[in-house]
Amino acid sequence: MLSSNHIIEMSDLTPDDIGLVLDTAESFKEVNERRIKKLPTLRGRTIINLFLEPSTRTRMSFEIAAKRLSADGVNMTGSASATVKGESLRDTAKTLSAMACDLIVIRHKYAGAPRVLAESMDAHVVNGGDGMHEHPTQALLDLFTIRERLGTLSGLTVGIVGDIAHSRVAGSLVPALRMVGATPVVIGPPTLMPARPDVLGAEVVTSLDEALPDLDVAYMLRIQMERAEGMPFPSLREYAQLFGINRRRMERMKPSAIVMHPGPMNRGVEISSDVADSDRAVVLDQVNAGVAVRMAAMYLLLGGEAA
Amino acid sequence: MLSSNHIIEMSDLTPDDIGLVLDTAESFKEVNERRIKKLPTLRGRTIINLFLEPSTRTRMSFEIAAKRLSADGVNMTGSASATVKGESLRDTAKTLSAMACDLIVIRHKYAGAPRVLAESMDAHVVNGGDGMHEHPTQALLDLFTIRERLGTLSGLTVGIVGDIAHSRVAGSLVPALRMVGATPVVIGPPTLMPARPDVLGAEVVTSLDEALPDLDVAYMLRIQMERAEGMPFPSLREYAQLFGINRRRMERMKPSAIVMHPGPMNRGVEISSDVADSDRAVVLDQVNAGVAVRMAAMYLLLGGEAA
Amino acid sequence: MLSSNHIIEMSDLTPDDIGLVLDTAESFKEVNERRIKKLPTLRGRTIINLFLEPSTRTRMSFEIAAKRLSADGVNMTGSASATVKGESLRDTAKTLSAMACDLIVIRHKYAGAPRVLAESMDAHVVNGGDGMHEHPTQALLDLFTIRERLGTLSGLTVGIVGDIAHSRVAGSLVPALRMVGATPVVIGPPTLMPARPDVLGAEVVTSLDEALPDLDVAYMLRIQMERAEGMPFPSLREYAQLFGINRRRMERMKPSAIVMHPGPMNRGVEISSDVADSDRAVVLDQVNAGVAVRMAAMYLLLGGEAA
Repeated sequence: MLSSNHIIEMSDLTPDDIGLVLDTAESFKEVNERRIKKLPTLRGRTIINLFLEPSTRTRMSFEIAAKRLSADGVNMTGSASATVKGESLRDTAKTLSAMACDLIVIRHKYAGAPRVLAESMDAHVVNGGDGMHEHPTQALLDLFTIRERLGTLSGLTVGIVGDIAHSRVAGSLVPALRMVGATPVVIGPPTLMPARPDVLGAEVVTSLDEALPDLDVAYMLRIQMERAEGMPFPSLREYAQLFGINRRRMERMKPSAIVMHPGPMNRGVEISSDVADSDRAVVLDQVNAGVAVRMAAMYLLLGGEAA
Repeated sequence: MLSSNHIIEMSDLTPDDIGLVLDTAESFKEVNERRIKKLPTLRGRTIINLFLEPSTRTRMSFEIAAKRLSADGVNMTGSASATVKGESLRDTAKTLSAMACDLIVIRHKYAGAPRVLAESMDAHVVNGGDGMHEHPTQALLDLFTIRERLGTLSGLTVGIVGDIAHSRVAGSLVPALRMVGATPVVIGPPTLMPARPDVLGAEVVTSLDEALPDLDVAYMLRIQMERAEGMPFPSLREYAQLFGINRRRMERMKPSAIVMHPGPMNRGVEISSDVADSDRAVVLDQVNAGVAVRMAAMYLLLGGEAA
Repeated sequence: MLSSNHIIEMSDLTPDDIGLVLDTAESFKEVNERRIKKLPTLRGRTIINLFLEPSTRTRMSFEIAAKRLSADGVNMTGSASATVKGESLRDTAKTLSAMACDLIVIRHKYAGAPRVLAESMDAHVVNGGDGMHEHPTQALLDLFTIRERLGTLSGLTVGIVGDIAHSRVAGSLVPALRMVGATPVVIGPPTLMPARPDVLGAEVVTSLDEALPDLDVAYMLRIQMERAEGMPFPSLREYAQLFGINRRRMERMKPSAIVMHPGPMNRGVEISSDVADSDRAVVLDQVNAGVAVRMAAMYLLLGGEAA
């Protein structure tokens, strides 16, 4: 059992909770390697994917996770607006609760929306990404992947590179790393750092080249080129030159160091194609871990015993 | 068994049919309160949700209902137009029939579309709302909720308040109430009444304040603010003052009287927030009943025996 | 077992493979006629419907097929663009592979996209239509329907009428017919013929009236009126007069000859309403066969034994 009814922010979890999620995910990962990838565990439980911001990968990962546990999953997608025909998120929550749903996965453009949902209904809530705030299952699958590849989490130095200020991935990964005894370092140009980086709880470095030799993990954030307001740096080319990982930079890392990315990758921008396709990039391990970690999160929240 | 193969209009059902649906829904409501909300009843049956007009709540209610009965559900959503690449609704019906589907739930912007579908295929048809015509499962879930709260249907006076002329909810609820021995009263400004209200079969009252003391149920229709043609009354504020339910008005009702709304609510327009959140508002009971009533409708149409 | 891991083009299959698909589909067709249309065959297998071009009928046919075999199906639909947030199709393939999906059905506006997918992942790939290239399960269901109605395939003459140049239906049906010993004849105005019709491997005839008496099957292609660039003939009326099938023309065919159409039909253009509704039109048999043939394709690709 987890100590919290919801997984909205990393602070909902204790270090023991994190360990429990990762250990449970390990056994689900084995299930996913079988020919018949199906457990009856959540049969008859109703899980709603409430994705009010476009998403494909994360929605599919949660949907596949729910199906492999035999839950009844229902998708509710919609426009960026939080509302159904003008209904408030609070009323939507109560309505879904009245349909006797057991767990809601919510992605929402506004930070805090998952908490509003959780406060308005009986169902368990998993934050599938809220605005620029948090994306905790991403951090959990990242921890899973690091532990799997490097054998440990405690004592590692993880550099998170890119648009720290607007990244919900960083928003969850920084506290997650601290909880498991790793050291997060955030790396990027000053224009992509939060106004008060000290509240992040991570060392701030503005030169990737300087930080590289100390890193066990280089975690490359996605440059969100689809953002309407444009990018706060002169050019993609300049960004790639200063903050992209490429073979030359990878070779300056420790021999054991790995490269991560939450996907989808902009090849040639934050990560070069040869690095993306190298053995040291664990991007597809992360995707694979995602299904297992989400199975674990759903399973543990819905009161499952050890798998 | 129901006396009809379809539930398109309330007139497809007899009073005995209505009783059977409500009684069957009661046992499904109990299933929905269990941890494992799943029956094998409709395993291997194919149910298509053909929603050609945007809907979230009703589509989800039907989809959850189908899954809890273990049916194979497939969604087919589309633009407001009745057609798939210009195909007529009749050809769409024949196509879905040829895929061996057992039951279709259709929502359509044109009144009469579900009947066209039923005449062109072998599958059972449930009308999930057609234009300004009918929405029979909404009326059935309303009856269920009234009976559950007030213990009876016969002899009650139910005031339906709002845009009677354009409401498919009223279009089904008025005849449904008459069939079970209750008395419908439609309440609203003359501009929101049908041209010939006498064909409705309901008493027409133009003052909510006048009608209130006699009502056992105040059923507040949604003001459809998203309607393109604008609203046929001076302002939302004036509408709320004359035809919205609020605490002052609620206190003038019988002590046992309840307040209903088909959702989603416009808080502050047809219903004040304090009434919506009071014990006398049964809006969430209606949502809860919706899943159970739709399970009953699918189950009975597909030839199930008593649950 | 099929000789190929994928069904992307007809040339992936041998004549023996075709026979195996059709025979397997026959037993699934019987399943689809039962009250309980469900087999446990693909339980725990993950099938993704990746429809990056709008489709309703084909997507539903595959989705129903997957559900009737108890597979876990997940839909991934999107804009005409091949990309998810700018990700390449190759990276999308690797991502879906990392989620441990077993089979992908892809519809894509670009010819060749399914092959790119197959080369980038471990999953089996079924081409659900790629640009103006191929649509092999359509050809397989067409063969199934012809064999069912006429008792044989070998030795038949099949006229394919319409926009040959832009038709993926013709792109698969012509080689499919040749593989089973039938003779394809393509019929249409010179403006709708490919620049080099000889590479098709079919006789080219520009007069429907001239070809009619020799045909065992008149296969009417859909005029795609939604195509943006307009239609390469003077008017729909003229097209119907020269290349549409109508009762007068049908009566000039052999008594045993049948009329086919991939749907959705433009009644009054390529097919008159009385022909569409006549006993000699097998359009709905084709739709019915579609589910069974797709069940067979999924079943055989995923390593099933004889059903």
